[in-house]
Amino acid sequence: MAGFVAVGGGSSIDTAKAVNLLTTDDGALMDYLNKPIGGGRVPQRQLKPLIAVPTTAGTGSESTAMCVLDVLSLRVKTGFGHWRLRPTLAVIDPLVSLTLPPEVTASAGMDIVCHALESYTARPYAAFERRQPEDRVTYCGSNPVSDLWCEKALALIAASFRTAVRDGSDLGARSNMMLAATFAGMGFGNAGVHIPHANGYPIAGMVKDYRPAGYPQQEPMVPHGQSVSLTAPQAFRFTFPTAPERHLRAAALLDPGQETLNDPAEQLPSAMIRLMRDIGIPNGIGAVGFTEADIPDLVPGTMKQQRLLATCARPVTEEDIAGIFAASVQNW
Amino acid sequence: MAGFVAVGGGSSIDTAKAVNLLTTDDGALMDYLNKPIGGGRVPQRQLKPLIAVPTTAGTGSESTAMCVLDVLSLRVKTGFGHWRLRPTLAVIDPLVSLTLPPEVTASAGMDIVCHALESYTARPYAAFERRQPEDRVTYCGSNPVSDLWCEKALALIAASFRTAVRDGSDLGARSNMMLAATFAGMGFGNAGVHIPHANGYPIAGMVKDYRPAGYPQQEPMVPHGQSVSLTAPQAFRFTFPTAPERHLRAAALLDPGQETLNDPAEQLPSAMIRLMRDIGIPNGIGAVGFTEADIPDLVPGTMKQQRLLATCARPVTEEDIAGIFAASVQNW
Repeated sequence: MAGFVAVGGGSSIDTAKAVNLLTTDDGALMDYLNKPIGGGRVPQRQLKPLIAVPTTAGTGSESTAMCVLDVLSLRVKTGFGHWRLRPTLAVIDPLVSLTLPPEVTASAGMDIVCHALESYTARPYAAFERRQPEDRVTYCGSNPVSDLWCEKALALIAASFRTAVRDGSDLGARSNMMLAATFAGMGFGNAGVHIPHANGYPIAGMVKDYRPAGYPQQEPMVPHGQSVSLTAPQAFRFTFPTAPERHLRAAALLDPGQETLNDPAEQLPSAMIRLMRDIGIPNGIGAVGFTEADIPDLVPGTMKQQRLLATCARPVTEEDIAGIFAASVQNW
Repeated sequence: MAGFVAVGGGSSIDTAKAVNLLTTDDGALMDYLNKPIGGGRVPQRQLKPLIAVPTTAGTGSESTAMCVLDVLSLRVKTGFGHWRLRPTLAVIDPLVSLTLPPEVTASAGMDIVCHALESYTARPYAAFERRQPEDRVTYCGSNPVSDLWCEKALALIAASFRTAVRDGSDLGARSNMMLAATFAGMGFGNAGVHIPHANGYPIAGMVKDYRPAGYPQQEPMVPHGQSVSLTAPQAFRFTFPTAPERHLRAAALLDPGQETLNDPAEQLPSAMIRLMRDIGIPNGIGAVGFTEADIPDLVPGTMKQQRLLATCARPVTEEDIAGIFAASVQNW
């Protein structure tokens, strides 16, 4: 086979990345997944060309070296990353997104928002220990190049996200959302994401009966963009002290018309919540089927994502994560 | 040989690109130069790895697929571009720029300014005729990705250029200038430059006795950054009607504190001239040794740069170029 063409959302593109890897290199899928869930094996061979054609404006998988998947047998969602997985070429065509239902537009778009905000507030690259080239990881922390992609993604989101949800036929808004997704992918693809995405894995992996409007109804699921955004407002309250000016700048980009609040730590959570309400995102993890009683079961799923938590600008304990879940049962 | 390491300014890095090409592929240098000066030959083979370590903040050659050189026998400066020429890796270290003389800092920095402004005002990518992949050129016109790099480069210039010239030991300013150079290289390297750079070729190639302070005095020379900036204010008056809002946005990024002028077409030239005066750039082509009488000799050198003029957002005649030179004998 000469190569692969992946047409679809992030799941389709990530599936193509995995198939490309498993048909080129040795080892089984579990060998490659991040430790401690998998074996942390490093791809050794050059993969075949992969052309990615995203049909949603969300994951940015077309521009990243990441592959995220559900391990159904373990009820866990996880991922791995290596530069060899990055698609050779991406074809970004907003015309293919015109018929996305508003709920999918909203959910996928929240993935963009979280990519940009988590990268922008990530531990700065210079705060990591120096490593030899062969020991370097894909996620290297916030840096001047990832900042530039994330800032632009947030500005595009501010300009067009609500319009794209309200009027899916607005080609200008759809174009901006497609650009925002790819740009945020360029950003988080080398900076990294942190708590909201780490929490998103158990939220999605341990879904109960939730069947969201706008999605196929056969299986319960928490769409990725919902799962990563539901705890984000509280996560950014938690990270605010590590870089107040970055959180304020991010809020100003995401919601340029926002009034100045008395508590600066509320500026970014408030901008997010206003957006999430406007576009119909469920109100907290309570709205997708979890209660306070589920938190002890969710926390270990987050703590397994050490690859992501290492990108947080402050140490993260089980108690911290439990507190973030508890404050996110309802977001407004 | 396993590869090349180029340490120096744009000339050093471009020399390494040419040596890499000529020791790997067939053909002589003249075969590769753009038509009509050279043969327009396309590199066919994969080049050896090239690591670029820029010691000036200017050309952005470390991030581009361009190679610019003087053909002394023809008294002409010209260039060529192909993706195979792009360095494999760039090491951007502001520490190596701390001892640059202020005149070199100023001149090289004006190259960044022109890269960003010319790309940002270039003919939009969607205005070019569609081409088959094998017929596509390196310069594809202004586009959302080049815009993002250019906007950020201009913001960094606004924040740090004057400081870097005034106090070369300011590491923060030097760091921003190094980033701005590489970022603008990412921008113009795929969008393209137009009239100011096209005019820069004959200005530099036909130098008379000018020996600038801060540079070696053995040979007369017009430093690249001076040569491309001296006609830029007038060039942007010429291109203003093609995209007024872009010229205004560029001026606002370059000089955020600038007052609003009565004639909007003057906003960007005025911001440039204020900067050029502050950092000691010569006052027009008159200050580097040319008079009105030289203009008929300069114009053909510009018109040979059809590769660049094609990136201009409006057609450019010999009369247009003569008029731009005439208005640039003195800029203030």
